[in-house]
Amino acid sequence: MKYELYYWPSIPGRGEFVRLALEDVGAPYVDVARVPKRGVDALFPVLGGSLGGARPFAPPVLRAGKLVIAQTANILAYLGPKHGLVPRSEALDLEARQHQLTIADLVAEAHDTHHPIGSSLYYEDQKPESKRRSTAFLDARMPKYLGYFEEVLAANKKSRGKWLVGRDRTYVDLSMFQVIEGLRYAFPKRFGRYSKKIPKLMALSDRVAARPRIAAYAASPRRIAFNEDGIFRHYPELDR
Amino acid sequence: MKYELYYWPSIPGRGEFVRLALEDVGAPYVDVARVPKRGVDALFPVLGGSLGGARPFAPPVLRAGKLVIAQTANILAYLGPKHGLVPRSEALDLEARQHQLTIADLVAEAHDTHHPIGSSLYYEDQKPESKRRSTAFLDARMPKYLGYFEEVLAANKKSRGKWLVGRDRTYVDLSMFQVIEGLRYAFPKRFGRYSKKIPKLMALSDRVAARPRIAAYAASPRRIAFNEDGIFRHYPELDR
Repeated sequence: MKYELYYWPSIPGRGEFVRLALEDVGAPYVDVARVPKRGVDALFPVLGGSLGGARPFAPPVLRAGKLVIAQTANILAYLGPKHGLVPRSEALDLEARQHQLTIADLVAEAHDTHHPIGSSLYYEDQKPESKRRSTAFLDARMPKYLGYFEEVLAANKKSRGKWLVGRDRTYVDLSMFQVIEGLRYAFPKRFGRYSKKIPKLMALSDRVAARPRIAAYAASPRRIAFNEDGIFRHYPELDR
Repeated sequence: MKYELYYWPSIPGRGEFVRLALEDVGAPYVDVARVPKRGVDALFPVLGGSLGGARPFAPPVLRAGKLVIAQTANILAYLGPKHGLVPRSEALDLEARQHQLTIADLVAEAHDTHHPIGSSLYYEDQKPESKRRSTAFLDARMPKYLGYFEEVLAANKKSRGKWLVGRDRTYVDLSMFQVIEGLRYAFPKRFGRYSKKIPKLMALSDRVAARPRIAAYAASPRRIAFNEDGIFRHYPELDR
């Protein structure tokens, strides 16, 4: 069975967390809206609910045989046990789910640095507010989240601080890699300075990047570059 | 076994979604920070990670025997199958998880109407931005979310449009009740007018309120009233 991923074809966005999981385990999948001649129109049936399952509120959506699954953390929690992306332990599965939801909260806040008033408005219509929110994010929220995960990593004796949950890499580590790449892209100055305070997370990110399948994926045209339509956007005026 | 719920003692907040699930099934639990003479200090050990599990980023946290579980949607997904709060079907369990995460997104956006710049600042320090964000929320986001759930409800043939997932009420319905109560409290004028467009969700909410255990809970001192320290706050200047 080939998975079908339904996501916007021009941004890494939330779909990238799913792509990284599928790529890391070499699971066969079609990135439906990126198939030549299909494009974004290919998303409409799934977003309209006509492929079955509960109609999604938004992409990403994963079709796995008869199942049609939306919400990033839900997709990853589904894939985890099927592909060895999470330990076979109820407690550690719950830990992974918990961390993925905290990452989702961080991702939403990173998005809102350029959309503090609303995703229904353009960035250009909320620039002063974006500046204020970015400052609060960079000063308080980003360090709170990443400082927390740095401690979680240090406390994980099972992996000797190499991975966030259990002994081996999980989808949570792959997602953390993407968050770190995104923050580095969006805020090269501020994140560059801050990153010295989270050496274990930075090493984790390097470890993910060096995984053969992830490295091959990153070098392939399948990996979409960060850009100013996505979650992590580089607006120099927001990076002090 | 008695569950232990760790949450702020003075607001409904995200803890309320867990309380409603526990109350609806009559599960024994201690709301630890509300035990006389304990208070908020009772949260520190669990937030410090000393009760086991992955250290939580924030409350609510549920202790279930040896398990220590954080993130609201994760707690509900754990409780669901154990207490008949979700159907015994992989597809419907995934649907419930998906909807709960969409509700979590809506709740975060409702929170940000009074904290668009950052949760590290007071409302008083972000009033003009709150007015703009509330307008965008009430004009675009709230109708988008609730219009979506109204359609999900109408499309659920299994319950004839009575409940969101499967035949019977799930934790998703209990959470939707809380969202509707919260929006009614925060934005009585705007939500009052808008609510006429979502008759099925309003009927669902009435149906939840009429459940004997929920009605008894709502009439008890265990139910914490909405207030201006929580997620759903009534600031008349934000309600047009």
